[in-house]
Amino acid sequence: MDFLTRKKRAAAAAKAAGADALLVTHLPDVRYLCGFTGSNAALALRGGRAVLFTDGRYTAQARAEARGTRVVIAKRPAATAACEWLETAKARRCGFDATQTTVAALGSMRKAVSGKVRRGMFVAVDPLIARLREVKDAEEIVRIRKAAALGCRLFDGMLSYIEPGLTEMAVAAELEHRARLAGAEAMSFETIVASGERSALPHGRATRAKLPRQGFVTLDFGVVLDGYMSDMTRTVHLGKTRADEREVYDSVLEAQEAAVAAVAPGVTASEMDEVARSVLRRAGLGKYFSHSTGHGVGLEIHEGPRLAAKQKQVLEEGMVITIEPGVYMPGKFGLRIEDMVLVTSKGGEVLTPSVKAWIEL
Amino acid sequence: MDFLTRKKRAAAAAKAAGADALLVTHLPDVRYLCGFTGSNAALALRGGRAVLFTDGRYTAQARAEARGTRVVIAKRPAATAACEWLETAKARRCGFDATQTTVAALGSMRKAVSGKVRRGMFVAVDPLIARLREVKDAEEIVRIRKAAALGCRLFDGMLSYIEPGLTEMAVAAELEHRARLAGAEAMSFETIVASGERSALPHGRATRAKLPRQGFVTLDFGVVLDGYMSDMTRTVHLGKTRADEREVYDSVLEAQEAAVAAVAPGVTASEMDEVARSVLRRAGLGKYFSHSTGHGVGLEIHEGPRLAAKQKQVLEEGMVITIEPGVYMPGKFGLRIEDMVLVTSKGGEVLTPSVKAWIEL
Repeated sequence: MDFLTRKKRAAAAAKAAGADALLVTHLPDVRYLCGFTGSNAALALRGGRAVLFTDGRYTAQARAEARGTRVVIAKRPAATAACEWLETAKARRCGFDATQTTVAALGSMRKAVSGKVRRGMFVAVDPLIARLREVKDAEEIVRIRKAAALGCRLFDGMLSYIEPGLTEMAVAAELEHRARLAGAEAMSFETIVASGERSALPHGRATRAKLPRQGFVTLDFGVVLDGYMSDMTRTVHLGKTRADEREVYDSVLEAQEAAVAAVAPGVTASEMDEVARSVLRRAGLGKYFSHSTGHGVGLEIHEGPRLAAKQKQVLEEGMVITIEPGVYMPGKFGLRIEDMVLVTSKGGEVLTPSVKAWIEL
Repeated sequence: MDFLTRKKRAAAAAKAAGADALLVTHLPDVRYLCGFTGSNAALALRGGRAVLFTDGRYTAQARAEARGTRVVIAKRPAATAACEWLETAKARRCGFDATQTTVAALGSMRKAVSGKVRRGMFVAVDPLIARLREVKDAEEIVRIRKAAALGCRLFDGMLSYIEPGLTEMAVAAELEHRARLAGAEAMSFETIVASGERSALPHGRATRAKLPRQGFVTLDFGVVLDGYMSDMTRTVHLGKTRADEREVYDSVLEAQEAAVAAVAPGVTASEMDEVARSVLRRAGLGKYFSHSTGHGVGLEIHEGPRLAAKQKQVLEEGMVITIEPGVYMPGKFGLRIEDMVLVTSKGGEVLTPSVKAWIEL
């Protein structure tokens, strides 16, 4: 990973925001900028220098991972040590991300510097690193492709495993075991296996419920590979098809495919949302589509941009987003279909090409 | 779970802190107070009333889980809707947890109420719910016992599986699969399997490295069962024992057992830490024990109290803590032994009674 370029971009973004330094404490941001993956870290950027602060548990790991960045093993909290260093490095206006810094942490940061410089030292800036992270570079896209491809292989393999009578948890267990054996570091989030009436729960975690003889099974899962996450959903059908199920499935699929086809640089997030939503609205299903259409994915499972009404953000080449409309009819059934899509110069490239046509098992 | 009592205690704690209302947004705190497990929530407490705000994805789930608490499905961000409600409920001094509220979130909370009441409306209070959660009630202890017991069964079962040549990831995969099949909702944290030289990494995630013919394998893992987490570490040995390895193992075990024996209501967190640390110091290993001695466990993997130097907090009956000294010698080897211990009226009860004597596989 080209950490040097990323650190330079971060410093430039801080400068453009009127700051002469930047304190980064959100762990995925720290990892993005210097490669360190430990659970305690603060990264200080000031005048072309970058210093990573962590604790004694990570002495060896930090030096191995954060090559090209100075590492300081601090006895005090990492952010405190970082602030002290920033003062000695003559920073006087240090940017921080207000969406990732707690009120208490800001208090500690202020206490860490002397009264002489405290006033005006810490200024809330936009989530600069989150913004940089939205557009993936070539190395990130390689990793995301691999994670997405593994997700697809796992899903395809599960088709011969899923059958009525298995518990949702057994399905999740099998999927996760296969993911691990295939090299996944972890799942991106708690695997969703929602079957029968439970498919009407958009976030139905795998439970001890048994897959029904007849009805939907929604599988929403992701793997983490080299730090990058995949995210995909497919809904398959067990037993005899009912006309109402098929009709809703076709509408969701139409909405999903319309949104995928609409992906292109320059399209706004709200336009993307509206493409999917309008299809379902026309089918009389608008009120059952109770969440937004998608989100960015990368080092975190939910990143920008958010594809929802009123979101003015514009899609850019290099973004990786999900497109995941769904319909949830309480007490009846529900379903969702989700792909990861890379925004290219010309349009969108689906990274999760597993079959989306009606699957009857 | 006795949510009514918890909500009453929370309200009383807020009142004692000089607040006439409380806004709770940290998800484990929300779950603790009302049972809701969704990923988006704000709970407002005011004048004996409690209202849970979430979004349309959770309509069915929130009503099912948060029985006894009014549920509002909000179109706006949950915390915004909660603040608006608090204003109409005539709250004028609403406590919030500064350690769990971002600077940006506080800004949104302020914007959500009118200028008439904004001044002085939101006051940072100590982490009141985190404090309540430190002392577990009877139902919580039942669940924690079950999670800890499952952890032990899994560890015991893995002893016949672990052998030289397996990758760390394969060990993690097997353990996690067994956990899932045994009903675990998830692992408490990324499973640590650190073998050979990698055992010197206190937080060595499972990698593609193969277990050596000779050396340590540290297994640190936990399961989530009904929301409650387990946490335990054992270090086993492969191949022929070397005297230096055995000596360090015995010192760590002595330190761990001394600290377990010292657990009792009234002992301070720093005293607990010192009990373990002094044993290792006397053995000349003090500088290799680079983290604190333990932490509380419950709905989250790291809760209070923190067993570390300078921590004045006193152990209380009903707390569940880990005791986990370790020694990490860079480039050589490392090991850690960790139990979960319930603080009882008389002392401590080990919840993870898997064997701690030298295990040679």
